[in-house]
Amino acid sequence: MSRQHSTAGPDGRNRAPRILDIPIGLHAIGTRRETDSMGAVDVPADRYWGAQTQRSLIHFSIGDDRMPKAVYHAYGYVKKAAATVNGRAGRLPAWKADLIQRVADEVIAGRLDEHFPLYVWQTGSGTQSNMNTNEVISNRAIQLVGGELGSKSPIHPNDHVNMGQSSNDTFPTAMHIAAVKEIHEHLLPSVQALQRAIETKAQQWHDVVKIGRTHLEDAVPLTVGQEWSGYAHQLGQAIDRVARSAEGLYELAMGGTAVGTGLNAPPGFGEEVAADIATATGYPFTTAQNKFAAQGGLDAMVGASAGLRALAVPLMKTANDIRWLASGPRCGLDELILPANEPGSSIMPGKVNPTQCEAMVMVCIQVLSEDAAVAFAGTQGNFELNAMRPVIIDNFLHSATILADACTKMRQFCIEGTELHRDRIDDYVDRSLMLVTALSPVIGYDKASAIAHKANDEDTTLREAALASGYITGEDFDRIVKPAAMVGRT
Amino acid sequence: MSRQHSTAGPDGRNRAPRILDIPIGLHAIGTRRETDSMGAVDVPADRYWGAQTQRSLIHFSIGDDRMPKAVYHAYGYVKKAAATVNGRAGRLPAWKADLIQRVADEVIAGRLDEHFPLYVWQTGSGTQSNMNTNEVISNRAIQLVGGELGSKSPIHPNDHVNMGQSSNDTFPTAMHIAAVKEIHEHLLPSVQALQRAIETKAQQWHDVVKIGRTHLEDAVPLTVGQEWSGYAHQLGQAIDRVARSAEGLYELAMGGTAVGTGLNAPPGFGEEVAADIATATGYPFTTAQNKFAAQGGLDAMVGASAGLRALAVPLMKTANDIRWLASGPRCGLDELILPANEPGSSIMPGKVNPTQCEAMVMVCIQVLSEDAAVAFAGTQGNFELNAMRPVIIDNFLHSATILADACTKMRQFCIEGTELHRDRIDDYVDRSLMLVTALSPVIGYDKASAIAHKANDEDTTLREAALASGYITGEDFDRIVKPAAMVGRT
Amino acid sequence: MSRQHSTAGPDGRNRAPRILDIPIGLHAIGTRRETDSMGAVDVPADRYWGAQTQRSLIHFSIGDDRMPKAVYHAYGYVKKAAATVNGRAGRLPAWKADLIQRVADEVIAGRLDEHFPLYVWQTGSGTQSNMNTNEVISNRAIQLVGGELGSKSPIHPNDHVNMGQSSNDTFPTAMHIAAVKEIHEHLLPSVQALQRAIETKAQQWHDVVKIGRTHLEDAVPLTVGQEWSGYAHQLGQAIDRVARSAEGLYELAMGGTAVGTGLNAPPGFGEEVAADIATATGYPFTTAQNKFAAQGGLDAMVGASAGLRALAVPLMKTANDIRWLASGPRCGLDELILPANEPGSSIMPGKVNPTQCEAMVMVCIQVLSEDAAVAFAGTQGNFELNAMRPVIIDNFLHSATILADACTKMRQFCIEGTELHRDRIDDYVDRSLMLVTALSPVIGYDKASAIAHKANDEDTTLREAALASGYITGEDFDRIVKPAAMVGRT
Amino acid sequence: MSRQHSTAGPDGRNRAPRILDIPIGLHAIGTRRETDSMGAVDVPADRYWGAQTQRSLIHFSIGDDRMPKAVYHAYGYVKKAAATVNGRAGRLPAWKADLIQRVADEVIAGRLDEHFPLYVWQTGSGTQSNMNTNEVISNRAIQLVGGELGSKSPIHPNDHVNMGQSSNDTFPTAMHIAAVKEIHEHLLPSVQALQRAIETKAQQWHDVVKIGRTHLEDAVPLTVGQEWSGYAHQLGQAIDRVARSAEGLYELAMGGTAVGTGLNAPPGFGEEVAADIATATGYPFTTAQNKFAAQGGLDAMVGASAGLRALAVPLMKTANDIRWLASGPRCGLDELILPANEPGSSIMPGKVNPTQCEAMVMVCIQVLSEDAAVAFAGTQGNFELNAMRPVIIDNFLHSATILADACTKMRQFCIEGTELHRDRIDDYVDRSLMLVTALSPVIGYDKASAIAHKANDEDTTLREAALASGYITGEDFDRIVKPAAMVGRT
Repeated sequence: MSRQHSTAGPDGRNRAPRILDIPIGLHAIGTRRETDSMGAVDVPADRYWGAQTQRSLIHFSIGDDRMPKAVYHAYGYVKKAAATVNGRAGRLPAWKADLIQRVADEVIAGRLDEHFPLYVWQTGSGTQSNMNTNEVISNRAIQLVGGELGSKSPIHPNDHVNMGQSSNDTFPTAMHIAAVKEIHEHLLPSVQALQRAIETKAQQWHDVVKIGRTHLEDAVPLTVGQEWSGYAHQLGQAIDRVARSAEGLYELAMGGTAVGTGLNAPPGFGEEVAADIATATGYPFTTAQNKFAAQGGLDAMVGASAGLRALAVPLMKTANDIRWLASGPRCGLDELILPANEPGSSIMPGKVNPTQCEAMVMVCIQVLSEDAAVAFAGTQGNFELNAMRPVIIDNFLHSATILADACTKMRQFCIEGTELHRDRIDDYVDRSLMLVTALSPVIGYDKASAIAHKANDEDTTLREAALASGYITGEDFDRIVKPAAMVGRT
Repeated sequence: MSRQHSTAGPDGRNRAPRILDIPIGLHAIGTRRETDSMGAVDVPADRYWGAQTQRSLIHFSIGDDRMPKAVYHAYGYVKKAAATVNGRAGRLPAWKADLIQRVADEVIAGRLDEHFPLYVWQTGSGTQSNMNTNEVISNRAIQLVGGELGSKSPIHPNDHVNMGQSSNDTFPTAMHIAAVKEIHEHLLPSVQALQRAIETKAQQWHDVVKIGRTHLEDAVPLTVGQEWSGYAHQLGQAIDRVARSAEGLYELAMGGTAVGTGLNAPPGFGEEVAADIATATGYPFTTAQNKFAAQGGLDAMVGASAGLRALAVPLMKTANDIRWLASGPRCGLDELILPANEPGSSIMPGKVNPTQCEAMVMVCIQVLSEDAAVAFAGTQGNFELNAMRPVIIDNFLHSATILADACTKMRQFCIEGTELHRDRIDDYVDRSLMLVTALSPVIGYDKASAIAHKANDEDTTLREAALASGYITGEDFDRIVKPAAMVGRT
Repeated sequence: MSRQHSTAGPDGRNRAPRILDIPIGLHAIGTRRETDSMGAVDVPADRYWGAQTQRSLIHFSIGDDRMPKAVYHAYGYVKKAAATVNGRAGRLPAWKADLIQRVADEVIAGRLDEHFPLYVWQTGSGTQSNMNTNEVISNRAIQLVGGELGSKSPIHPNDHVNMGQSSNDTFPTAMHIAAVKEIHEHLLPSVQALQRAIETKAQQWHDVVKIGRTHLEDAVPLTVGQEWSGYAHQLGQAIDRVARSAEGLYELAMGGTAVGTGLNAPPGFGEEVAADIATATGYPFTTAQNKFAAQGGLDAMVGASAGLRALAVPLMKTANDIRWLASGPRCGLDELILPANEPGSSIMPGKVNPTQCEAMVMVCIQVLSEDAAVAFAGTQGNFELNAMRPVIIDNFLHSATILADACTKMRQFCIEGTELHRDRIDDYVDRSLMLVTALSPVIGYDKASAIAHKANDEDTTLREAALASGYITGEDFDRIVKPAAMVGRT
Repeated sequence: MSRQHSTAGPDGRNRAPRILDIPIGLHAIGTRRETDSMGAVDVPADRYWGAQTQRSLIHFSIGDDRMPKAVYHAYGYVKKAAATVNGRAGRLPAWKADLIQRVADEVIAGRLDEHFPLYVWQTGSGTQSNMNTNEVISNRAIQLVGGELGSKSPIHPNDHVNMGQSSNDTFPTAMHIAAVKEIHEHLLPSVQALQRAIETKAQQWHDVVKIGRTHLEDAVPLTVGQEWSGYAHQLGQAIDRVARSAEGLYELAMGGTAVGTGLNAPPGFGEEVAADIATATGYPFTTAQNKFAAQGGLDAMVGASAGLRALAVPLMKTANDIRWLASGPRCGLDELILPANEPGSSIMPGKVNPTQCEAMVMVCIQVLSEDAAVAFAGTQGNFELNAMRPVIIDNFLHSATILADACTKMRQFCIEGTELHRDRIDDYVDRSLMLVTALSPVIGYDKASAIAHKANDEDTTLREAALASGYITGEDFDRIVKPAAMVGRT
């Protein structure tokens, strides 16, 4: 029995049919009968999906969380690369490979999005979304050659679209592709723009001396530019962490098939597919060194999620700082004036609130908790499969998306329009008692401390208390206690 | 200056216009100019919302998370009750109160859902969603009396729809109403049905003796019915925890207005509104004893969220147990046979997986992490407001919804169709060495232990090892070591 | 073969030996040979523990986390009650029962604490700590009758001390007892004292009008007493949540033995033991309704942990509020003056920081994360046992303890000594623009809003802007805009 | 007024006293009076610490969590390097610098550990632990020159030991040093040894064919060596993640002093100190590029904590896999035989449990939750200081320590002694239906699926069902369905 010429084999039909130029869309009404190994199911006649997708819709309509479209777009790359490699090796007739690639391009471009209806809460391997992709590509390909929808001929969802693949290796591959694209094409550009906007402000306010605060209490001065350089630097480091944390995603499970051994995939399949995906996407994807690790665990996803968290942590601090510094306008710290984007209160006329900061803080809390879900799910693999994939990719993509958008909004509607309340800033510097710190190297900590306490207790200026203490002359005081000279060189 | 007769006051127009029977919908195209205290904004002409909603849409398009519709339906109760009480007290002319109530009923019924487009990630107080509600009710009411959309006359979004209210007291009120309804009308019925389905199985399998397992290791026997009675009981206790944890939600912040003092609301307003909402919804809502606590914190929401978690914890254990017990069919524990709802693998033909259990486990992980988000956000209040409300209500309602739906699916597509693999169950009982435990009270722990080790080391049956040990006769062994007698009375 | 008179049985020795009045302590040096079912092990000669404890010490020296002593004290109650019930039923000779009870009393009193050295990170059932207890009681009892340590005669650790018991039912029983005692005897008294201290302040400052803040921004006024009544009320509700969340702990697993069936325990054993423990401890313990639930899950612990979290949430908010309100002394909000307990800075002389608040915030973060550990572990049960018990009880007791102590310190060293900075508080009220809200019911939201914006933009007082607007007369303004009249009735 | 010769200045005493060779220890009883800027406090006469340490002990006795000793050892490096740099620059007389260095060496060596009693829950900046270090070094130095304890002369805790420093820059510096040392000197060696032990097993079992499992269900075969290579590879990648995640710790805040500006520290101080610490410790520490970021945030710690979590995730999966594979001995999967380290049950004689795996799972849960605490605390910085440092360093060091120890124990007492149950493994392979997958490329997915279902439904072997189906001959079946040929090349 030869595989290539057997009539029993799935690839028996070798003559290439003509590909018709049929636009996407099924203009039927009612339902169509589709089948899978468990029997027949009716599906909506205007949808490309098949029996397994329909079964999943029936069995898993839980909430309204749908598998992110980005996963299917990524699956487009997977199916296209597999068809390319299978075609190149002659395992798949060239015309079949071409046909699958053509439809895969439609998937990648998002043109078949409405045919991917499945819920997040489904099988833990993502098999149902893989089969959804296989079925849609199969039927759309069948349509393009004038075949019968649901016939699985000449393009079979399993034998051809899924050739040499398993959900177990393709789904994590699609997860990685989707995550990499979201990070590099949406999240990082947005955060970098925010970081630059903050950096611009830091430079603009380079010389504005203000009071520092530690423990929320008055401390020694720094410049507004220094304070914002801290925000910018934290964000810059977080950007690095995101990028580095995501590097693990470049390893793809493809080629491992069902349990990591690569059964039913030819030698080199994983390597070739990864190379194709790398070319198609422009990212340095390679085949995972160890497929058992890549399918039994989702550690690269957990690691990348830590990168998202690394962003949320300083963003939350920065957003909190900004809303506190803008608190007021008359009974708060009131150093910053934020753009007034909308009325703040339904009852208090004229109220303006730091709403962009609040949205950012909430987004950060959400990201921290979704990261915890990813890590938790990451621990729950068993044997050759971590069957918690949908919850992981959904949380990851969600976190990345809301972080990206929140950064964009925060930049546009808060940071770029923020101004300083110079009078208030100057006034605080003048009044602070912690300028006494500059005296410490000269008169010692203990005497300096006594002066500060004296000023506080007697409600005088620091200078008055210093002179009254007898520890220092007015001349020395004025020479040493100069806020602008206390802010250092950075 | 008298409030009632002043022409400067907002309630000057007292003659009741005729209410037209105009169906919901604005058939205009293009945009309409709306204004608020910050100026004019163009809004889509076919939408009822006003300037503040539109501003929020522009400034907060973060991800695709929309404020749950349940919050607006709840707001319908709030606005209706406020109008009723204001009308009753003569603060609002009767016809205005009636008009607002009429539109509020449309909101409650979900008939205006498409006019509530705002994102979750907005102002932390929920003011924008409150104003969205006020604006939609105002414009719909204006439409019903043939007025000019956007004119705020005769029904002003702030002065009339929001009369005696603030976002600060109405939003947490709406949160509580939405949460209570989701719990009692969606979640609990679903969980109770699941619990009954498990209970039914427990009764059905009351007498089937099976091996127990502790530390995953063979232990002494129990019945399948006992094991499932444990699942049912855990779920029953969790149901109680949900219900009790949600009791704090019956306290409503309404009446506190901006900071809890009730400024601009008349005496008794909170009490009356709560009573009206209680009547309208059928739940025992009352006014919060301390409005400063109710608005500065969201502790009742955090407490109720712990109830959701209390459900997720045993559900995850049960789902895990069931998928482990069904593992196989030939190389696993294989005691249970789950319904085969769909093909399990794109590569392995004939594979059936415990997908409902996996979906449930993922849902439970999600619920635990969303509960953590709720608690985190619950800590982040400041002074007279916890401005983390949207993230709290969104996570809460999401968790409740996916839990409810997952329970329904699990019941329908897993529990109800689960069957026992009796041969396997019996076989395990026969082979287990831990039956030796029954000998312990007679010959002592040490000798019993020696017998078990002997059987294990020599790969014999327990009886063989026991007799070979000389510690007990065959007759005594057979009398004492009876699995069916070891499963107790419960 | 009769159990009562057999010489082969574990209870053969029936004549009561004289109990010697030997104080606690073993004055031997070097090691002593102890045995268990796996053979012999050398243990320190001055310790009561036996072979299994020693094995655990060798195999589980992980970090320096020891099983909390409170668990052993609780185990004292368990062993005492079991001996009492076994003795009462004649299963155990009276003198053996008495002897075990006597030693159990020493355990309860903490007098044998140094003989319980085991680590938290051990077997997930807590068996090793149960055996530690059994071994220590056995050897101490043997010492008291002049027997040979390690001989297990006349008191055998398994056959007598553990009679009718398993780790699987006794360890969760001990967990519940320990948790209940910690909550009611340490945590709640401490929190209640804090709540009373806050309440006292609330009453003391009942009439001090201050500016409210929402979104950190100036809002309408309230009194300091109202603000603190919110703290007190949140804490009071949290105390209720703690107490109610802990009610599930009153159900004890005792009687379920190995897998919940009660094998080797006589009928009614669980009921009787629970009743004895209730009497001994003074808490309304009862036997768990369903032992499979009680041993397969630890839901009551997860539920009680949610109670701890319910406390941490408002405590963190309150601590944050207080440190913000005390921020300054010259560049912050500066409404509160906290006790200066210690120098705040090693470099800035005279600095005083809100350190009690910081410690409390850190404790609350810790509690939230430990609660998450408890919930996570709570999901990880399998079949007849949740083998995550040590991590659960350790986190629970730790959280309860640090919360209790932090409340005590916060009360003593922060709340009780807090004073108001009246000048600052008054000044804020005078300057706030949000007093305009009182005008809203009279002139409408839109005009009131215009006045507030005008005052802000032109940096004038609200009165100046109001009069300049022409919307209101000075007379009306003064009549309506009275802070003291705006704070309501509560 | 010249700093160097002023008698008012703190460094006036320039003549070097003789250093006495006094061993560590104070043999006084009762108390000693110590002072700080707030007055006098009695401290235990046999302790080196001063007034501020004592105040902290009084005000913060919360639980029994003490600041980890590793923090103080790290502080030894900090104080030594600062003294070196200050001495080198002539800011500190050479003999004073030498004296501080000498005592710092004692601190580093852990010889003064009992003089560092402070609690974790203290000031959020760690100032009290910094002052504890300063005070102990001061008094020990004073002792070494025969001075009067508590006199602060000739070595003043602030002016000399803390010269050019603040808690705000030294405490995070000490945190980083302590964390780096724990990771590289304790954690990584332990994990690497575990990884090697697993790798050894993977090689040893390279050719043992076993059944794979996905979704817990029977899948296609792989070898035991492949399965364990997956564990080893995941661990290897996690080791990389730990190391890379910790790289951010090499940046030290030293030189930033109070708010990041470096006030009171000379130019280049941070760079020189970092270089000195690098030399002393052997790690590539450098000065942080932006001190405002380094002190306002603790992002490097949060990042490093994600590394710990990255380790816990695969460790938990591996530990779970191993305990499941070892489940039995007669009613579980029973593929692995774990070392029997201790009796497993107090009631079931002869029971052996996977206790090392359970301890590891609990440790991993703890690590995940402590990592969440670190991230949460990381978000809570304000302005120039994140005042959540103690909770962060305590959780971090704790997690690293228990992970390290758990890995060591797991290796020693579980992995190294694990053996295969070959009969069982072989038997599973023979019985699995999923071998049908090998037929799929030949006869197509649909027919292969029919065969598998037939075998399952009729309870026959796969071969029997295949032949009965007529889809394939016995000869072809035997040629294609060879487990050993299905496990691939890796």
